[in-house]
Amino acid sequence: MTEIKDKSVETFLDELASRQATPGGGSAAAVMGAQGAALVSMVCNLTIGKPKYAEVEADLRVLLAEAEDLRAVLVGMIKADVDVFGKLMACYALPKANDEEKAHRSAQIQTVLREATEVPLACAKACAKAMALSRVAAEKGNLGVISDAGVAVMAAYAGLKSAALNVAINAAGLKDREFAEAKLAELQALMQNADSEAEEIYRIVKAKL
Amino acid sequence: MTEIKDKSVETFLDELASRQATPGGGSAAAVMGAQGAALVSMVCNLTIGKPKYAEVEADLRVLLAEAEDLRAVLVGMIKADVDVFGKLMACYALPKANDEEKAHRSAQIQTVLREATEVPLACAKACAKAMALSRVAAEKGNLGVISDAGVAVMAAYAGLKSAALNVAINAAGLKDREFAEAKLAELQALMQNADSEAEEIYRIVKAKL
Repeated sequence: MTEIKDKSVETFLDELASRQATPGGGSAAAVMGAQGAALVSMVCNLTIGKPKYAEVEADLRVLLAEAEDLRAVLVGMIKADVDVFGKLMACYALPKANDEEKAHRSAQIQTVLREATEVPLACAKACAKAMALSRVAAEKGNLGVISDAGVAVMAAYAGLKSAALNVAINAAGLKDREFAEAKLAELQALMQNADSEAEEIYRIVKAKL
Repeated sequence: MTEIKDKSVETFLDELASRQATPGGGSAAAVMGAQGAALVSMVCNLTIGKPKYAEVEADLRVLLAEAEDLRAVLVGMIKADVDVFGKLMACYALPKANDEEKAHRSAQIQTVLREATEVPLACAKACAKAMALSRVAAEKGNLGVISDAGVAVMAAYAGLKSAALNVAINAAGLKDREFAEAKLAELQALMQNADSEAEEIYRIVKAKL
C-alpha cells in the first residue's frame, strides 16, 4: 500500500475527508508538525549565506540540521498513526464469544492502547520541539521571510494541540492507570505553557513585519 | 509545471523546506485550512447514516456539503499563493535604470501587491469559515471521532493566523492606504475573536473525550 507521504497532497486531503478511519486527526497532526519544521528549514535556507546575516549563520546551520531531523521524524509519524490505529481496530475486531476470547481481546486491546498513547505523545513532543525551533527562526531569521517563522509556530502549535487530543483519548481507555497517568503527566508538561509560548513567538514575528 | 496539490506530501514538505521562495507560508496556510475542512468532512462522513445520530443527520449533510465546497476553495488557494508570489517577484525583477522604468516598475508592484493582499485575505476568510464549520462538527458529530473536530479547529485556526501574517506584510507595502486599511479592517474583523473561538471549540471537544 502506498504510504501517505507518497500520495499527492490532494489525495491525502481526499482520504482525510473520507469515511475511511485513517488517515485521521493523528496523521493530520504529524503533517502540521512537519510543515512547521519545514518552514523553520525554509527560514534557515533563506538566511544562511546572506552577508547581512553572517553573525547568526552558525546558529542557523545548527537550527537547520535540527529542523530537518525533526521533519524526518514527523513525516514518519504520519504512518505511525495509521499503523497503530489499524492495529487497534484489528484488536477490537477480535472474537468475544466466550470468556477466554473476551480476556484475550481485552489484553490485546490494552497492549495496543499503550502504543496508541505513546505514538501521539511522541508526535506532541516533536511538535513542541518544532515550536521551540520556530522561536529561534523568529528571533534570528532573515526579515524578508520572517512571516514563515510565524506560520511555522502556528503549524507546530496546531500539531501539538491535535496530538494531545489523541493522547487523552487513548490514555482514557488504559486499565494500567499508573502508565496512563505517567503519560498524561508528560503531556501536561508539554502543554503547560504551549498557548502562551505560541502567542509569544507569533508576536515576535508580527513585531518584525 | 506540476501543481503542488498534485505533488506528494513529502515533495510538498521538501519544497516548503527548500531555499525556493515558493511554496512558503501562504501555501502552508491553505493546506492547513484544507486539512481543517477535510476533517470536518470526515466527522460528517462518519456520523451520517448512523441510527444513533439520525437527529443531526440532516444538519451534518448540509455541513458536509459546505466543508467540501470550502476544501475545494482552499486547495485552489495553495496555487493562488504561489502564482501571486511569482507575479510579485517578476515585478521586483523589472528594470529600474531610469525614472520611466522606475515608475513603471513601481506601478506594477502596486497592482500586484493589491492582489497579494487579497489572496491571503481570502485564505484567512476561508479558514475562519472552516473554524465555524468545525464548531458544528464538535457540537453534533459522532463522539467516536469527535477528536477529529478538535484537530479540524486547530488546523483551521493555524491557517487563519498564518494567512493573516501575509495580509499584514503585503498591505504594509501598499501606497493606496485607503485600500490597505479597508483590507486590514476586514482582517481585523476575522481575527477579533479567533483566539477565544478556537479555544472554545477545542474545549467543547475535550469535554466530550
